[in-house]
Formats: sequence, C-alpha cells, structure tokens
Amino acid sequence: MFPKKKIRLSFALMLALLQTFASNAQDKGWTDVAPGVWKYVIGSPDKLDLLSAAESRPNIDGLLRLAESDFPLPRNDIFTEVVSEKTYLRFPLIRGEQIFGFGLNFKTVHQRGKILQLHVDHYGGTDNGRTHAPVPFYVSDRGYGVFINSARYITVYAGSGVRKDSREAPEERDRNTDKKWTSRPYSDAVEIVVPAKGVEIYVFAGPTPMDAVRRFNLYSGGGCLPPRWGLGFTQRVPTLYTSSQVEHEADLFTEKGFPLDFIGLEPGWQSKAYPCTFEWDSSRYPDPASFVRTMKDKGIRLNLWTNPYISSHSPIYHEILPFTGTHTVWGGVVPDLTMKEVKGIIISQFQRSQVNIGISGYKIDECDGYDHWLWPDVAIFPSGNSAEQLRQTYGLLLQNITTQIFRQKNTRTYGLVRASNGGGASFPYVIYNDYYSHEDFITALINSGFCGVLWTPEVRNSKTSEEWLRRMQTVIFSPMAMINAWSSGTKPWSFPDAEEKVREIAMLRMRLMPYFYTEFARYHFDGIPPFRGMNLEPGFSMQAKSELKNENLDENPYAEAVLKEIKDQYMAGEYLLVAPLFTGQTSRDVVLPKGKWYDFYTGKYAGDGEVIKVTPGLDMIPVFVKDGGIIPMMPPMLHAPAAGQKFDLEIRYYGTKPGSYRLYDDDGETFDYEKGIFSWREVRVSADKKGKLTGSISKVEKGKPDNLGNVTWKFMTQ
Amino acid sequence: MFPKKKIRLSFALMLALLQTFASNAQDKGWTDVAPGVWKYVIGSPDKLDLLSAAESRPNIDGLLRLAESDFPLPRNDIFTEVVSEKTYLRFPLIRGEQIFGFGLNFKTVHQRGKILQLHVDHYGGTDNGRTHAPVPFYVSDRGYGVFINSARYITVYAGSGVRKDSREAPEERDRNTDKKWTSRPYSDAVEIVVPAKGVEIYVFAGPTPMDAVRRFNLYSGGGCLPPRWGLGFTQRVPTLYTSSQVEHEADLFTEKGFPLDFIGLEPGWQSKAYPCTFEWDSSRYPDPASFVRTMKDKGIRLNLWTNPYISSHSPIYHEILPFTGTHTVWGGVVPDLTMKEVKGIIISQFQRSQVNIGISGYKIDECDGYDHWLWPDVAIFPSGNSAEQLRQTYGLLLQNITTQIFRQKNTRTYGLVRASNGGGASFPYVIYNDYYSHEDFITALINSGFCGVLWTPEVRNSKTSEEWLRRMQTVIFSPMAMINAWSSGTKPWSFPDAEEKVREIAMLRMRLMPYFYTEFARYHFDGIPPFRGMNLEPGFSMQAKSELKNENLDENPYAEAVLKEIKDQYMAGEYLLVAPLFTGQTSRDVVLPKGKWYDFYTGKYAGDGEVIKVTPGLDMIPVFVKDGGIIPMMPPMLHAPAAGQKFDLEIRYYGTKPGSYRLYDDDGETFDYEKGIFSWREVRVSADKKGKLTGSISKVEKGKPDNLGNVTWKFMTQ
Repeated sequence: MFPKKKIRLSFALMLALLQTFASNAQDKGWTDVAPGVWKYVIGSPDKLDLLSAAESRPNIDGLLRLAESDFPLPRNDIFTEVVSEKTYLRFPLIRGEQIFGFGLNFKTVHQRGKILQLHVDHYGGTDNGRTHAPVPFYVSDRGYGVFINSARYITVYAGSGVRKDSREAPEERDRNTDKKWTSRPYSDAVEIVVPAKGVEIYVFAGPTPMDAVRRFNLYSGGGCLPPRWGLGFTQRVPTLYTSSQVEHEADLFTEKGFPLDFIGLEPGWQSKAYPCTFEWDSSRYPDPASFVRTMKDKGIRLNLWTNPYISSHSPIYHEILPFTGTHTVWGGVVPDLTMKEVKGIIISQFQRSQVNIGISGYKIDECDGYDHWLWPDVAIFPSGNSAEQLRQTYGLLLQNITTQIFRQKNTRTYGLVRASNGGGASFPYVIYNDYYSHEDFITALINSGFCGVLWTPEVRNSKTSEEWLRRMQTVIFSPMAMINAWSSGTKPWSFPDAEEKVREIAMLRMRLMPYFYTEFARYHFDGIPPFRGMNLEPGFSMQAKSELKNENLDENPYAEAVLKEIKDQYMAGEYLLVAPLFTGQTSRDVVLPKGKWYDFYTGKYAGDGEVIKVTPGLDMIPVFVKDGGIIPMMPPMLHAPAAGQKFDLEIRYYGTKPGSYRLYDDDGETFDYEKGIFSWREVRVSADKKGKLTGSISKVEKGKPDNLGNVTWKFMTQ
Repeated sequence: MFPKKKIRLSFALMLALLQTFASNAQDKGWTDVAPGVWKYVIGSPDKLDLLSAAESRPNIDGLLRLAESDFPLPRNDIFTEVVSEKTYLRFPLIRGEQIFGFGLNFKTVHQRGKILQLHVDHYGGTDNGRTHAPVPFYVSDRGYGVFINSARYITVYAGSGVRKDSREAPEERDRNTDKKWTSRPYSDAVEIVVPAKGVEIYVFAGPTPMDAVRRFNLYSGGGCLPPRWGLGFTQRVPTLYTSSQVEHEADLFTEKGFPLDFIGLEPGWQSKAYPCTFEWDSSRYPDPASFVRTMKDKGIRLNLWTNPYISSHSPIYHEILPFTGTHTVWGGVVPDLTMKEVKGIIISQFQRSQVNIGISGYKIDECDGYDHWLWPDVAIFPSGNSAEQLRQTYGLLLQNITTQIFRQKNTRTYGLVRASNGGGASFPYVIYNDYYSHEDFITALINSGFCGVLWTPEVRNSKTSEEWLRRMQTVIFSPMAMINAWSSGTKPWSFPDAEEKVREIAMLRMRLMPYFYTEFARYHFDGIPPFRGMNLEPGFSMQAKSELKNENLDENPYAEAVLKEIKDQYMAGEYLLVAPLFTGQTSRDVVLPKGKWYDFYTGKYAGDGEVIKVTPGLDMIPVFVKDGGIIPMMPPMLHAPAAGQKFDLEIRYYGTKPGSYRLYDDDGETFDYEKGIFSWREVRVSADKKGKLTGSISKVEKGKPDNLGNVTWKFMTQ
C-alpha cells in the first residue's frame, strides 16, 4: 500500500500545481492534469464555468486505478482560435468513427452528424441540444472523450461541417445524375463555437470508450453513491396532501405489501409555492418535526419539492433580496447562486426548517427552463455573471448547495433535479421532467450514461394497465424507482388487474438492491455509470446504419436517410442487459453482444453475438445476464436495510464461465465511506473437474462494515 | 405640385444628413429620419446589418404621403444598455396591447408573450424564431412599430419577462390555493438581447397598425412591384426535363386551356447542381437561347432554380474562390456575398449565361438553412463578416444581386427565394419552403403582411382531389400562383374529377389580375401589404382569447392556456376577405369586421361585424367584399397582357356605399415606373336619387401608360 499512497499524494500535489499553472497559462499547450486527462486553455475563459460551478474535485484515487495513457488524438489536428469574442474549436474525426454524448438526448444515441446548441432547457421533443443536461462532453467509439468546460450556449457541429482545406474533403457530385449524391457529405471534424473570449477544454484517454467515460466521471469527482434507501421505492403524493394523509399513504403501502422507502411531498408542504417560502404550511403540516419522526418510525423518509424562486413571504426574502437578479419568476426573486452570501442564507433556511428535523432530500423543480419558467437572458445578476451562465449552471449550483447541507450533517441524500450539466456526476440527484414518452425515456436513460448524469423514466399515470406494467418494468431498472403522482394520485395498485404483477416487479427492485448498490459504488469509486447504452459494452458490434426510409422527394426533399440505431435496450450494471417492451408490443428483437447470454429469470442460454426475438408476455420485462454473471440479491423487504442491519444474500450465478464479482458494503447512510469506512468482498464461482459449481465470498477486513447475514447460492444455468 | 416637390427634396437631403449624423452619433438620442420614423444608435453597431445588406433606400415620396406624427412611445420607458459585448433593449407594453410580426411565423399570429430567437432557418414546425424570414420587426395594435436593424441571432422576450422594478409587477400568488395563479404572470415589456456591442433601432409611428407597417415597408424602399406576368400562373417542371419536354408542357397548357405565364426549371437545367455551375446542361438544353426564344413566342417566360453553392466545374469557380468562406456546402464553395468582387463575378455570369438570352427570374434555394444545408457558424469569411451575419443576410444579399441584374436590363423580374429578412420589402421575391401544412401556409401568408415579405402557399401534390382543389383555391389568392411539381410532376389537370374546377379557379386568378396588380402598386408606392392579416383591417375587433384546453396536469403541468386566434382568414388587397376551407372541412366560421360585407360570387349581403358560418361546397372558396368594394377584372386569358397590350375591364361593384378606387397601370414589364411613367385612374361608383348605380373611370394623363380596352360595369349587389 505504501508506494500507491505515495503516488497518490504526489499526484494530488502535482494536480494542484498543474491546475494553478494551467489556469494562468494561455495557449501554452496541453497540460497533463491526471492520468489520461489533459487540459488546454484558450484565450481568456470566463471565471464561471461548469467545473467551478460544480466545485468538482477530481477523484484522484479512482483516476490512479486507470492506466496511464498517451494523448489519444493527433494534437496537430485540434484547432482552436478566438475571433471577435468567439472561440472556435475543431477536433478531428476519422472514417467510421461514432460519437456519443452531448448530454441528455431523448431520441438519438449516435451523435455524429448532428448540429446542437447546448442550452439548458426542458426537453422539447427534438434532440437539438436543448435539454435538462446539455453536457458539452462527447465520447468516441475510438476510445477518447472531449469536454468543453463552458457555461455558455455552445453550438456544436458534431461532424457535419466540411472545410475547403479538409484532407478528406468529400468528392463533389452532381445531384442531377449521380445516384451517389448525398445530402450529407463526409465531414472529418467536430466543430464548436463557444460565444466567449476563451475556454478550457479537456481530453480524456481510453483505451475503451468506457475508460474515457470513467475518466470524465472521475475527473468530475466520481459518480454519486446514494444512500441505500435511495434505491428503494418512492411515491410522490398529491400536492395538497396533509401530514395525516401522508401517514395514511405510508400505512397503505405496508398493508398492501408494496415496498416504500421515501415519500415525496409536492408544493403543498410549503406555506406558499410558485414562488416559494421554504417554510411548512401550518394547516397541512401543523407539526413538521413530529410528522417527520412518525414517518421515520414507519421506515419512510421524506423528500421535499421546491423550486428556487423566493416568495416575499419567505423568512429569507429581505435578507436575500440584494443578491437576486433583476427579473422575477412567478413573482419570486431569483437568487444569484454564484454568490457566497446566497449560499449561506439558503443553507441556513433549509437546515433550520427541514434538514435538521430529518428531511432526507429535495426535488428541485423549474431550474431548467421551458424558457418561460425561468429568468430571461436579459436579466442582470449582482455577481456580474450573465443570465446565460446562470442558466447553464443553475442546476449544478442547486445540487451543490443542497448536497453540502446533508454533507455537513454526515447524512447522505438522494433527490431529484430538473437541470444539470457537466461536472455534476458526484451530486446525488436524478434528473426528471414533464415529458412522458416511454420509448424516449429509455433512450434518455442510455444517454445519461454517456455524460455523467442520472435519469429516471418515472411513472406518473397510464391509460391502460398494460402501459402501467410496461412502465413499472423499466422504472425498477433505473436510478430511481418512482411513481410521481403529484397530480394524478395514482398508486402502485391503481390498476387492479396488474396489482400482483406490479408488486412482484417492485419486489424485484428491492431484491436487486445489493447488486444496484454495488453498481453505484462502482460509479462512485471507478466512474462506471450504473445505467448505460450498449455502445459502452464490449462485444456490442451492432453498427448504426442509415436507411432512406422515404423516397418521396415532396416529403423528404433532401433524400435524408434515417439512422437505425439501438436505443431501446441498455445495460443495468455489469451483468444485466434490459430489453423493455412498450405498450402495444408483444415481441421485440434483442441485440446480444458477443459472448454467451442467459435469461435472467430462468438461467437458460439465450444467444451469443446475435439478434434474438423474444415474446415475453405482458408480465415480463426481458433481462439477460452475461456469461459468468453474479447477481447478489436480498430477500424481498418493504424497506431498504438500515445502517448496520444485517440481511441475507442469495447470490445468483449465470452461465459457464468462471465468475467473479466485488460486492460493496458500507453503512448505507453516511459519508463515512469517504473516510475509507467501506468494504469490498470478493465473490467467486468456479466449477470443479466434474463441473460442479461452487461459490465463495470473502470476509471483510476487520473493522470494516459487514451487514452480511446468511448466504445462499443459486446456480441458474444447469 | 411645386411645394410638394420642394419638401421632398429637402427631406431627402435632411434624411441623408441625418443618416450620416446618426451613424456617427452614439447614445445621443432619437433622430427623426423620415416622417414618423425615428432611429437610435446604441453602442457600436456592426457594419453589416439588415438595411446595409439590402442596400434599401427609403421611399421618401411614399413616406411623405403619410402624416407627420409624434413619437408613439414614452421615450423614458425605452431602455438600452450594452453589457459585456451584448446589447439589451426594452420597449414598454401596456395592458391589453397586442403585438404582431417577428417574421414569418407559421402557427401563430399574436406574438405577445412569446420567446423567440430570430435565426434564419427552414421553418421547423415551431414558432420559435427560426424561420425563412425572422424579421426583427413588430407592430402593435396601439399603432406603432419597432425594428432592430441587426444581422445577429437576436433573442426576443415579447412580453414574457417580469422585472422586480416593473411599475406593473404582477401580484404574487400561491399556486397551492389561489385559483388565480397563472403560469404566465403579466409582463410589461418587450425585452431583447442582441449579441453585439451595439445596434441601430427604429420606431415607426401610426396612428394605425397599418400605418406603422406602411412606414416600415416604405422605409425599406416600398414593396416590390412584380411584372404583370408575375401575377399569372406558374408551373415548375420535373428536375430532369429537357427543353423539348418543357416546350411540350407549355403546349399542353394551351391545349387544355389552362393559363400559364412562366415555367420554372429545376436543378436539371444546370450542367451540375448541388453544387451549381450556373451553366446550362448541353444535353438537356442544347440551345438555350433558341429555347428561351421559342418559349417566349409561346408567351411563356422562364424561371431558373439555383442555389448559391459553386461547383469546381463552374466557369467562375477559380475567379470566385479567393472570396469564399472556409467551408463548403455539398462540396460547393460559399461566396462571401458582402464583397463587391463576388457581386461582380456572379452578376457577370448570370448575365452572360442566362439573363442576356431572356431568362426572366430565379428561384433561389437553400439560403435558409435546415442547419445542415448551409455553412456552419464556425465558418470564416474573407470580408471579416461572421458566419452568423452572413446567415442572417444571405437571402437579402442574393435578392439584391439578382434584382440588380434585371434592373440593369430595365426588365422586371419576379422570383422565389427561401430566405429573407428586414429591409427586403422592395425585392421582387416570394418566399417558399419544403413544409406543406395547408393551414400553416395560410397563417404564414397572414404573417408575411406584418413584416415586409411575400409568401406563397404553393401547391405541390395532394393525396386527394379535395385537397388539390382546396390548395388551388388559396394559391390563387396569394402573391404567386404556383404549382411546384419539381418532384411529383403533377399538372393542374392531374385530378380529372377536379380538372374543370381547377381551370375555373386558375382563370379567376387571371381575371383578378388588374385588381392584384393595383394592389401590388399600392404595396410599392404606399407600403400597403397586398396580403395581410385581419388585425390590420379596420373594424376587426375579434380579440384573441386564452383558453385552458387541457386541465390534466400530468399532460399540461403548468396549466398553460392556449390562445384562440384568427389565423385562417385574411385580406387580399383592399376589398377581398378570403376564408379558405381545408381538407375535411365542409363548413367554417368567418369573422366579418364591422361594416357590411358581400359575397364575392353573388354580391349578396353576408353580414356586418359578426361571425357567420359558411358551407360553400367543394368547388368554392369563400370570399367576401367590403361595402363599396370595386374589383377591376379582365377577361379570362391564358397569359398576362404584354406591355402595351390593351385589355377590357369588367369593373365589379359590391354593396351600397359610394365606391372609389384608384386603378394602377404601367407597361407591366420595365422599371420605367420608377421614372414616373405610370398612371392612376379614379374609379367611382355612386347612386342617383332613385338608387340607380353608375360608374365612372377617369382618363389617364397624357403620355402616361394606357392599356384600357372596353369597360363594362357589373353592379353585383342589387
């Protein structure tokens, strides 16, 4: 351990030095800021950027576990220039190269060829860069990533522009007669306009795309590690519920045998909302402290909705007023969250009124836009930061401030937020929105894995019990298993003919908690996104193909082809491939990467590097396990195990390859894991000469957390 | 006449002086640049702006005919500021005030409350500012207009932002319990961000909204006056047609008795296209000059498709190369049209190859965007003007250059263009696109009238003969009666069961030519848009109302109301109210402004300041005539009258009020009207004591154009 420790210290020191140096250096070239991470400063960057807003601190330990690497791009092909207050960037692309990322897109996975204007906004139905987390990061299938650390509205030509001086300029063709004419000639570069006099850029090495994503996530601080209860079930109650109604709701879950870990209170908990007072409504919640205790006794934590706009009736209004922008939202003032005075005022109010009495987290609404539900770009803020910069970072700033409150209490939180951006991977927040396309929700889940954010395909209501079941089947394979019934009041049992199936599904979520918890630990310590697209999976060779689907030039005048891409199946952690069905479907194709895959429910062999058709019936979501897969599961429970509570483990094993897994454990509730108070157990499965399978699980180091009860083994593939 | 002439000269002089002065003045306040037109210069505006790109020269004669007026807004409530390379503007709004404009929107007419980013682009299905002509001009129903003379991507908050310091800040409400809570609190200003260090702004006085629009149009040079043949019928042939196929097509029109004035040739006329050579293809067009003559002998002019991207096979390629941007489009170089060298090269090529042999006009494609079919914003141009500025002005620059070619030949042109902007009213071009919603095409026609551009609801093809008829019924009441069959090859007679009705409709267009020609003369001389929304019509009092159509908060979480507005009926010239039906409709409501209205076809009284329901049958488009309306019509002819060709007139009169009209005439083909060679005839209808109607028409001044044959009168209302 000594040498490693030594390296770590010297690297941290070097990092600090390099950062100081680099932030003063201009156009001096690339500086090596961490293993496989390089930074370049062009012109005079803005003071407020994404990483400074997030105050992200690189997870050096995690980065050190990744191999050193050479700079992954030809440096001479990276072009930067500042012209009349705009910064122009160019990064090379090679033939056949695919790129992914640029934030939380909902309809497409492959981004090469796209034109995007990265702009924090509620997603509006088109992948044009306006989304909840328009992260200026992309990863290439050639195994590197690029991050533009800017809080401006950036325009990205992700391989669409063609230059006269391109070495690979496409041949000119005559559309009149040449059938090879294409509306989209070959482009050899990602080109970017940053409307600022300079910018910081980062390059992340591979060698695999996953490595580049990991380095990006770790450089942002590593992914978040939710409290264990955060991975349980959550229900959001109708907005005007009273404390006794909420208590009753919790009892109903227990009575009906549905798991529940936390309840979300909507605007009605506040004395006034839209804009907000950040104070309890005394008629609906006459004794908040006692209510929170009662709920805690039932095993239920509470999450509070809020938005950041402050009512004149709020106790902090007068104090915060001097630090707010020129414009209001719904009559509420807009705090300039880049000012330390503001942070202090908000933290103190949230502590006093909510966190100190035991509230466990927040749902932070309306920090994304819809354009109308936000300050306009003409607003002026007292810090001198522009409305544009505030918009691009507000989600990060809110996550940062609220996370600090819980960190001060040494209690983890896990909440919801409607806007985020690059640098926010370590914040324990899941993005949600008002959009409700089930298919697009899954594509967003895939894209969240490319850009260091989490996303929930939340369930609100459904037109049919089929839709209800299909949606419930995917939300349990996501970062937050939520029913958001703020308006509809829908319950898990609202569709009687689906009630039993929904209960089973919800219980499957609970049983998978040890697996998901470990996968989040890997997100935190190793930067591996827990939910991610197939394109980060080794052996996935399905290339996206362009197809001319509509040859009617009246309707498709540029004869534009449509990209056929895999955007409806994804990986949930190391071993599980999830292939949901949507309303109306009775069967679907599943693309299995190379290597053997097994049915999660039966353990039966399913295929190897091929496309299979599945017809699972309404009550089943197809899930496949990688050969050698080890899935640690716990018994069905209504609540996540509390800190120190021992629970039994059923370790499932699939396939025939020798299996190994590292199972994570800690107290599940505090930040003590940051001080090294956690454990990893080695889990192994091997066959003896006769083919008989045996499993083993290591003991934890002395003094490290150990919640293990009985272990049973289940060898699924016989 | 003398005194008027004197005023004109001194005003022109004053104007020149003031403009010189103003362009050097900064923050010195408003300067009076024409009657009822004021200019203000903030900071250091860009050299390239909309008016300079269009090289528009105010039509001082026309402006002088409008009354002098006081500054129409409280000056102290107009706010301007330059902060960190951005210019912020604010203009006041009062309660109940409605605003219109901001360019060629397709779905909405009322703009108050909208947020728009004005950006030249192909219309993408949402009124968000990205459109073919995102003109930064708005007009208020309180009778004034505002124009931002900038070639930047401007962000407009058209009455959506709320300031802390607003005198009319909306009351804060608690959404939890207050039913009066609204997602869109009252806003008292239009606020604008111009991403530049300064900008020129203009205010136009009323007293009516129409007066403000007229001043804006006249300040841009007055509307265009098309050649007479431009108002006839036009057919665009399939892209690979040969000269003999085109000749045959013309013969078919004559044989079948369908009117036709010009044919459009699509990319196949060029030797290579996408990118373009600007040269004839010798296999399809072996002898262009003789072909053009043959067509002219048949009475048919020719319009040529092109886009601005230049092939390496073009004869001008090497000469123009040094004056092109860094990026290519479809492999073609992009000329920097702001450079005089480029203008010279293009003019000379177009003259030599096309205009000198008798080509009558152009269809200028792909200067709008779709983002992909244009240079990216990272492109650098040799003039130093930015890619953004080029994009905002390219349509204007192309219209300007091509108009100059025809002006040099003293021959009018009338063509098609896919992008325009503020300042381009005088260019003889009609905007078109690839979108094809019939309803939205009509809304665009309405919006074109607010912003100094023309738009055609072109007909391409239809799924049914009903749709074909309905579309044909509206295209004849538009600036260009076009069938665009470049891909489909559809002919007017392609739907046999509708053939006779289509012929009638086409002939109605021809018969209305004297009326439409006069209405365009009024556009030119008086700035009155020939096609326009009801909101510019006196007596139209239908206020748009907001309605909460969807109360399901799951689907409409902000309880947003939808504006119910009149966007499917419009005025065609002074007297005609057109109320189209769309596929599937058998009846519709028509809102008649105050004053009596009469059925165009029968002369029967229809209503007065009321909403009527009409059930016109498939073969009829409802058209109503204002009381006292005088509609000069000519006999059905297959081609527009040539210069000097006399034609008979049937003057229709509707209603009971004394009628008067001024009928315009000139040679219909040259720019001689700019030298005063035109005539206006007074047409009057009055009743004697017994109620017997008589009509009179004045003679033209000696030496002025006179194409009048026999005049007959038709008193439609008996």
